[in-house]
Amino acid sequence: MNRKKISSYLGNILLIEALLLGIPAGLSIYFREKAFLSFAFTIALLAVAGILCIKIKPETGAIHAREGYVIVGLAWILMSAFGALPFFISGCIPNYINALFETVSGFTTTGSTILDDIEVLPKSILFWRSFTHFIGGMGILVFALAVMPKSDDGGDMHIMRAEVPGPTVGKLVSKIRATATILYGIYCGMTLVLVILLIIGGMPVFDSFCNAFATAGTGGFGLLNSSIAGYNSYYCEMVIAVFMILFGTNFNLYYLIIRKKIGLALKNEELHWYLGFIAFATAVITINLFSTEHWLDDSFRYAFFQVASIISTTGFSTADFDKWPQISKTTLFILMFIGGMGGSTGGGLKVNRVIIAIKSGIRSIKNAINPKLVQSVKVDDEPVDENLVKSVALYVSNLFAILFVSVFIISLDGYDFTETISSVVACASNVGPGFGWCGPSGNFSSFSALSKIVLILDMLIGRLEIIPILILFARGFRLRKYN
Amino acid sequence: MNRKKISSYLGNILLIEALLLGIPAGLSIYFREKAFLSFAFTIALLAVAGILCIKIKPETGAIHAREGYVIVGLAWILMSAFGALPFFISGCIPNYINALFETVSGFTTTGSTILDDIEVLPKSILFWRSFTHFIGGMGILVFALAVMPKSDDGGDMHIMRAEVPGPTVGKLVSKIRATATILYGIYCGMTLVLVILLIIGGMPVFDSFCNAFATAGTGGFGLLNSSIAGYNSYYCEMVIAVFMILFGTNFNLYYLIIRKKIGLALKNEELHWYLGFIAFATAVITINLFSTEHWLDDSFRYAFFQVASIISTTGFSTADFDKWPQISKTTLFILMFIGGMGGSTGGGLKVNRVIIAIKSGIRSIKNAINPKLVQSVKVDDEPVDENLVKSVALYVSNLFAILFVSVFIISLDGYDFTETISSVVACASNVGPGFGWCGPSGNFSSFSALSKIVLILDMLIGRLEIIPILILFARGFRLRKYN
Repeated sequence: MNRKKISSYLGNILLIEALLLGIPAGLSIYFREKAFLSFAFTIALLAVAGILCIKIKPETGAIHAREGYVIVGLAWILMSAFGALPFFISGCIPNYINALFETVSGFTTTGSTILDDIEVLPKSILFWRSFTHFIGGMGILVFALAVMPKSDDGGDMHIMRAEVPGPTVGKLVSKIRATATILYGIYCGMTLVLVILLIIGGMPVFDSFCNAFATAGTGGFGLLNSSIAGYNSYYCEMVIAVFMILFGTNFNLYYLIIRKKIGLALKNEELHWYLGFIAFATAVITINLFSTEHWLDDSFRYAFFQVASIISTTGFSTADFDKWPQISKTTLFILMFIGGMGGSTGGGLKVNRVIIAIKSGIRSIKNAINPKLVQSVKVDDEPVDENLVKSVALYVSNLFAILFVSVFIISLDGYDFTETISSVVACASNVGPGFGWCGPSGNFSSFSALSKIVLILDMLIGRLEIIPILILFARGFRLRKYN
Repeated sequence: MNRKKISSYLGNILLIEALLLGIPAGLSIYFREKAFLSFAFTIALLAVAGILCIKIKPETGAIHAREGYVIVGLAWILMSAFGALPFFISGCIPNYINALFETVSGFTTTGSTILDDIEVLPKSILFWRSFTHFIGGMGILVFALAVMPKSDDGGDMHIMRAEVPGPTVGKLVSKIRATATILYGIYCGMTLVLVILLIIGGMPVFDSFCNAFATAGTGGFGLLNSSIAGYNSYYCEMVIAVFMILFGTNFNLYYLIIRKKIGLALKNEELHWYLGFIAFATAVITINLFSTEHWLDDSFRYAFFQVASIISTTGFSTADFDKWPQISKTTLFILMFIGGMGGSTGGGLKVNRVIIAIKSGIRSIKNAINPKLVQSVKVDDEPVDENLVKSVALYVSNLFAILFVSVFIISLDGYDFTETISSVVACASNVGPGFGWCGPSGNFSSFSALSKIVLILDMLIGRLEIIPILILFARGFRLRKYN
């Protein structure tokens, strides 16, 4: 294990975080908020820690897959630990575990909150809270790859693979760093378009930026206690809903579109399933709400927004869906598991894993009918490698094992099945709100410190797809052994 | 597809069912109950249908895996459809869907009931209800293999594999029919011992038989509305608890013991995990109940009985565990998924699948640390075939897919998450009671007819491990095509 190289990577991440914290620090000066001190102190601390880490002169030597996982796992834990300090020191969140929960929820783009009243917070703190979504959405290490001095491409690939969601990570161009730059370019460009559209819709500039960050990262932290419902603008809701879907889409498709291969992008099978899930779920909930509560236009408005919000694992709300009839709630619950497309900023299992799981399920029936018929699972008319089929099935079974352990520990708090299960699913899928009192109109503050730590780990496990976090706990992870 | 051979097999099964119905019919004469007519009519119907099926002279030709699945799937559906008639015709369950639900719940050894008041039923009907557990526990086709005229051994293997639970089915001796006879011998012998022990404990003879049948099949239908609690006998509870654990154990181990290879049986790794789960869950619930409700002796009494009942997927109760604190409920909920050992009469995922899933999860972390280290998953110190690892992971992911679809449809009824999810899990794992109003003190009658049909399919899918039921629905299942 190349410890010095790991340390140098982590140092760079901490310095980047210090730079990024400069933006809310600047805002706190502009708004004349006392939170400035907490930002300044955190930046100083990050700078010292970052320089100390880097001073350990990097050894030559390659970065292997395991170093990639360790770098990503440690980087996310460290940047969350430091990123929580402004909340904690400013007194906005006086309990450090809560501050850490909120920060991890931000970086992992979960959007679960422990805050009772969001609207009383200083603007610079609110900005940092939303900005963590933007940083975590595409990944801080992918960002680092885009801006850091050139290193060997093989090591970069391992880092990228560990941080970017989805079962397969493709290079858009032959160089990883160029790929990272393109991805961040698309990401920032789309965010800017969203900001402009929201401003046109009459949303205040500050709110437009913050909500755009939360949408881009598919995070879900809002500025109002009533989330997006508070703006009471059909236009803004629809713009945000469409952009949630767009940010839940595989970014490789946008690169294809840039390269003018629109036909190829539109033929993508994962996209069809993703849009199919959205259409089906919207139809079910629209009909359900229409038959119980609202007229058709409102039913569609609430249904479409909420479906877009949950499948992209953003977690914004325009209605308290916890009060909806059970079939709508179950529909949303299932969407929480599915999540966005691979290679998007969304969480959950990812649509392509779901496709492979469903198709290999169907294949096992076909094989029972005719065992001699050896068929590949096909996606995009291409046979899927059997190792990928196996790894997808293992991912599903591992994820459920983790969910069960988490639910078991959280049950110690003694709350009902609804909160116990939905909090774990909402965190591990990076959705945000669950059902019951941790639903869209509630928050996660009532959980014990132990439960919050479990949920923090679930959010990280969900965002980084299990391995980078569990590797840090593995008994087999002995630094010396692999040195 | 060898249709004539399938038909002849099914005919034999129907005739065997007619014979088995002779027992409750005889009892109805003995007890002078009018239910006799319903038994007599059903027996006549079965005889006619069975003979008609057999009259189609069996073609020569082998039985392949697909025929094995189809025979088992159709046999279970047919014997349930006919087996429900005594309940329906006697007027004990005036709604046929309810009667079918109760019968499928019996044969699949689930033990979920739609009955509000069990104690008012005629004794012969109660006997039939408990007897279905005994028939379904070891499998009616395994029984048929033991008693039917000799056929080719390859075809028998396919049938046995389709009906006996667990990822691998081993022949105890070289001939399948001899294996089936040994299994049924052990099964009947153990049941008889249980009957005698219960009679010694002061339980009425009729009750001893019925409760022994429900225990042997790990079913859970009782004779009292308060299940086993109603006998109020510490001795009987402990005897039943121990036998529930014994019937949830792989029957191959009993064969080893008979062959005086006790050491080999006790070294079995799956057994260690099974007993480990039981010990851990009992400890958790005992401590939990001790710290909240009861003194130590009662806490252990309730905890041990309920853990044995749920992990073996029997579903008897001595307390309303739905009223217990959440950590105890979650513990039981997780045990529902685990279930008994492979090759037992218990349901659920089966302990050996859980072991393989956990170990392959751990391996994926190890592989991330050192990708060059190609390790096999090991059980009993033997490497597990990679195809089995894959098929276990696929089984888990397929099962969850089925659970999600079922939960979605049942949500149409508009009940809470607790009932909606726990009813599906309790049925698909063949446990019986769920949580909330379908818990140990409630029943399943409130669900709509559609939901009951879904739960019926879940019970069959759980008992027959997915393929034999789904194969009947498969669009690809075209008889002619494979003729």
